[in-house]
Amino acid sequence: MERHFFLELQVLKDTLIKMGSLAEQAIADSVRAVLERRPEIAESVIKGEERINAFEIEIDDAVVDLLALQQPVASDLRFILAVIKINNDLERIGDHAVNIAESAIAYANRPELTIHLDIPEMAKLAQEMLKASIDGFIHNNPALCRTVLPKDDVVDELNKKTVYDLVQVIRSDSSSVDQALDLIRVSRNLERVADLATNIAEDVIFVAEAQVVKHHTGRRVTGS
Amino acid sequence: MERHFFLELQVLKDTLIKMGSLAEQAIADSVRAVLERRPEIAESVIKGEERINAFEIEIDDAVVDLLALQQPVASDLRFILAVIKINNDLERIGDHAVNIAESAIAYANRPELTIHLDIPEMAKLAQEMLKASIDGFIHNNPALCRTVLPKDDVVDELNKKTVYDLVQVIRSDSSSVDQALDLIRVSRNLERVADLATNIAEDVIFVAEAQVVKHHTGRRVTGS
Repeated sequence: MERHFFLELQVLKDTLIKMGSLAEQAIADSVRAVLERRPEIAESVIKGEERINAFEIEIDDAVVDLLALQQPVASDLRFILAVIKINNDLERIGDHAVNIAESAIAYANRPELTIHLDIPEMAKLAQEMLKASIDGFIHNNPALCRTVLPKDDVVDELNKKTVYDLVQVIRSDSSSVDQALDLIRVSRNLERVADLATNIAEDVIFVAEAQVVKHHTGRRVTGS
Repeated sequence: MERHFFLELQVLKDTLIKMGSLAEQAIADSVRAVLERRPEIAESVIKGEERINAFEIEIDDAVVDLLALQQPVASDLRFILAVIKINNDLERIGDHAVNIAESAIAYANRPELTIHLDIPEMAKLAQEMLKASIDGFIHNNPALCRTVLPKDDVVDELNKKTVYDLVQVIRSDSSSVDQALDLIRVSRNLERVADLATNIAEDVIFVAEAQVVKHHTGRRVTGS
């Protein structure tokens, strides 16, 4: 039973890693579709969402089986609860990639905005955050996950700056409103991806340290 | 043990109901703050988020205890997994209420846009959807939850129309860009609230019918 349980946990971990890679790739591709104005890449991101959603259901099923058949306790239980949350967060990241891809398609059909934007920098940070969260999860490395938390503030600032810059573009030339709104949507979705990567990092820290870092309460979990 | 378990499930349900009411109220108040241009209501929504977040942690703790001590199986287990997801969704609805409240504060400091907008209608629908999802959860009523699903499409359409209308406002008068963007943000956040209420409805249906309605696969869960 013990060995069987260990193997099932490993399978769950591997499945979540695969799902994480897909989500990372979806974000990278959707942003590339925006910046290089390539709607065909955006279309493939939209199509690829199905695979992420299929992983979500697969992981939920595996969790139900694991809880029902193995009745894990203590640290294994916390691990499984984190899997449920991370699963949910990755599925939502997939949704944001689709939003970005939709904006990429709309944007590709309009005149390009040639101003400097921080979207590539935001995308790079959001992907780094997601990668560090998932790696932190795989290697049970809360220290790696802690590096994610301050980056969330950086992405928030870049989002504010990007929205501000795009509002200035609209002000100075109201014919650019559609393009500017496409890019505002991209920026806000990247900001949400960074939030979700931060959630994952917090959940990994929770598993590793049985401590709630969410909402900055720092409160220890009952019984730990 | 059985009776104890029943009582613990009841407490969990009651806590989630309270959290649901807070989330509903937060949405109602934040939209009221926008429409009546009352930043003081928005401030109280932002302050009130702490209570919603405290509920989230309380419910997570109760779930860990319940799973560890009672080792529920079958339908109870599905119920608890739904609680975890609904908990997460309600916390996110609280976040959206804060976003709307922030926009309300910004908007109250700018000249009012006097065009007709569908934001009140969207807000009404989103609240109805949330209420029906939570009521459906309390009374284990999947039929009530199914009434939520088509409304999501209506809110999506109203959001598209609202964004379109506001883009026209910006086009015709670029000095209104800030106000219009505030209201676009409100509209998009309401659309996300409707999505989350839909998630909750789907989770309730999942518990009641052990069937995945998410992502429209219609696939039955293993072992049921």
